[in-house]
Amino acid sequence: MEDATKKDEKDGSGDAGAFSCPSPVQQYDSVLLAHGGGGRLTHQLIEQVFLQAYGNPLTEERHDGAVFELPAGRFAFTTDSYVIRPLFFPGGDIGELAVNGTVNDLAMCGARPLYLSAGFVIEEGLPMDTLRRVAASMQRAASRAGVRLVTGDTKVVDRGKGDGVYINTAGIGQVVAPRRVAPSSVMPGDAIVLSGDIGRHGIAIMAVREGLEFESVIESDCAPVSEPVLALLEAGVEVHCLRDLTRGGLASTLVEIAEATRLRCEIEEEAIPVREDVRGACEILGFDPLYVANEGRFAAFVPGREAGRALDILRRHPVCESAQIVGRVTGGGKDEVGERGGTGAGRAGAVTLRSRIGAMRVVDMISGEQLPRIC
Amino acid sequence: MEDATKKDEKDGSGDAGAFSCPSPVQQYDSVLLAHGGGGRLTHQLIEQVFLQAYGNPLTEERHDGAVFELPAGRFAFTTDSYVIRPLFFPGGDIGELAVNGTVNDLAMCGARPLYLSAGFVIEEGLPMDTLRRVAASMQRAASRAGVRLVTGDTKVVDRGKGDGVYINTAGIGQVVAPRRVAPSSVMPGDAIVLSGDIGRHGIAIMAVREGLEFESVIESDCAPVSEPVLALLEAGVEVHCLRDLTRGGLASTLVEIAEATRLRCEIEEEAIPVREDVRGACEILGFDPLYVANEGRFAAFVPGREAGRALDILRRHPVCESAQIVGRVTGGGKDEVGERGGTGAGRAGAVTLRSRIGAMRVVDMISGEQLPRIC
Repeated sequence: MEDATKKDEKDGSGDAGAFSCPSPVQQYDSVLLAHGGGGRLTHQLIEQVFLQAYGNPLTEERHDGAVFELPAGRFAFTTDSYVIRPLFFPGGDIGELAVNGTVNDLAMCGARPLYLSAGFVIEEGLPMDTLRRVAASMQRAASRAGVRLVTGDTKVVDRGKGDGVYINTAGIGQVVAPRRVAPSSVMPGDAIVLSGDIGRHGIAIMAVREGLEFESVIESDCAPVSEPVLALLEAGVEVHCLRDLTRGGLASTLVEIAEATRLRCEIEEEAIPVREDVRGACEILGFDPLYVANEGRFAAFVPGREAGRALDILRRHPVCESAQIVGRVTGGGKDEVGERGGTGAGRAGAVTLRSRIGAMRVVDMISGEQLPRIC
Repeated sequence: MEDATKKDEKDGSGDAGAFSCPSPVQQYDSVLLAHGGGGRLTHQLIEQVFLQAYGNPLTEERHDGAVFELPAGRFAFTTDSYVIRPLFFPGGDIGELAVNGTVNDLAMCGARPLYLSAGFVIEEGLPMDTLRRVAASMQRAASRAGVRLVTGDTKVVDRGKGDGVYINTAGIGQVVAPRRVAPSSVMPGDAIVLSGDIGRHGIAIMAVREGLEFESVIESDCAPVSEPVLALLEAGVEVHCLRDLTRGGLASTLVEIAEATRLRCEIEEEAIPVREDVRGACEILGFDPLYVANEGRFAAFVPGREAGRALDILRRHPVCESAQIVGRVTGGGKDEVGERGGTGAGRAGAVTLRSRIGAMRVVDMISGEQLPRIC
């Protein structure tokens, strides 16, 4: 067989293509519809772009899926599609986002991320170099987060029917939290710990999209947060719930939790870290940082007595160095309902914010679209 | 709490939205960008379209991912994106395809499908009813295949930047095959068992897309094949490899296997079932059924001595009633390489077809794009 391979490489013949070294994908500067056709070009694209970037023993099998051993236990499974515009932005790109986003969703389930899938919907005409950069970026992000890209899929849609590339990732992680980490575990008396300053991802995207220039470039906070989350769990902190603060920002996340639990989340504006440049940009653009998307930030709900320890643990990790306790959960029992009347502030299942000057206001989910295609 | 809920439902107040019954999604006839914004409308879309269709205890948690127990063992993980045009076609739709396709990929790993994720990239302006039909169709397909849709994601892209809806599904299944079901297990002497007639899916799509009318409507073969596959495995048939015959058809699949294993696949044209109407349509359209996509067909590689038994088991299932043994795998050792000279037919790693009149030809992967956006 070795001889045959050598021979074939030498004479370059082999119309059957069986042994012939497939013509390098480099000859195509951009993606063709045929790259999604399931034939020779799809094969080349997968081999020479994706497997070259992700190559590992599981993808080596070239099968319809990856197969791996798992121990008995609880596992988390999650998915996200990424349609961000532009594909590259200060502090990251769609590939890094696609890995970190799903890694973070697994972390929010109290799980150690293990395996990721990657599904690409590519627009005909996408420069091959763009795809290569994105694939390389995904691999770097996966290495950083300690997760493996093990299976994937590529489709190509007609020019004009996509927007460069959309990426879906799904992920499997092993739950390490001994208790149920979920909205249903949130209790009155829980502290709300915010993992860092908010608003950077949204503002970074907005700035590049609209061609705005601030004194310094505001970079996205896009990062994996599984390490600090696992550190909390491994230290035995009684984590009740974890939520990353993506679309809709801190406000929408807290409202979701409040509505799901029928409890109240009371937060203090003064305690919420927002960088000066981000605050300035928000003022110029008319955005409220509470609603701006983040890609490396989460809220942890832990018993009040554990909040200090949780904060200490989180701050040891660079991605959480500006972590803060920003509020608390209070009961939403029958007694309290409506006690403050028409403002809604006393209602179960609401979020209230005490402003810097001491005024209380109810925080709702964003109802329209502040900034589309943010992730 | 109950009283409060009732009160709120009655007076319909609650600008904070905490208790207010969210305005029904029905008021929107089509999907807005804001439905992808992560706020109130995203929440409504998920609750009222997706959870209404898939509702089960795992999605009830409304968390970033689904969490479930798994026993120790081997698991398969796979993903596919679906970009088919049109969304609805004779014999199926994109939702059914998205479930069956991933269910089938898990089956091809020798696994019992357990859980699916669903990621939607929706084009702004998609009629809400279309989305509802697709979601309902996914749920029906999932029930039929015995798999649960447990986690999902929704993104909305600008009008013109998508094509109605793209769906990604990823799936987890438990491997029940005692041996490794993979190209690397294929051996000389294996029989190639085809699970049924080929070419229907591709021709069904082509006909509706081009407005062609044949005597009878040709329906896609889109179907889950996990049941017959599991039946093979449970009966103890020594299954070496399984492959579904989607993009690129039977030909591309066999070439992939031949190239991966460096063995030869020899198939008999006469043994390959193609329905008369499909054959006629292929002739009119200039297609070769060997390259036409299927969505409910697979090839099984089993030892020659097991082929008869495998066939009997498969044919008991309606989806495989036209199963046939269509060929065999022969050695690709050094001795055989080039023995037949320039035709390439004697090379290791090739697929050869013996035609009805006895002529031998080498079958290659399709190199261009026969029919884009077929799945």
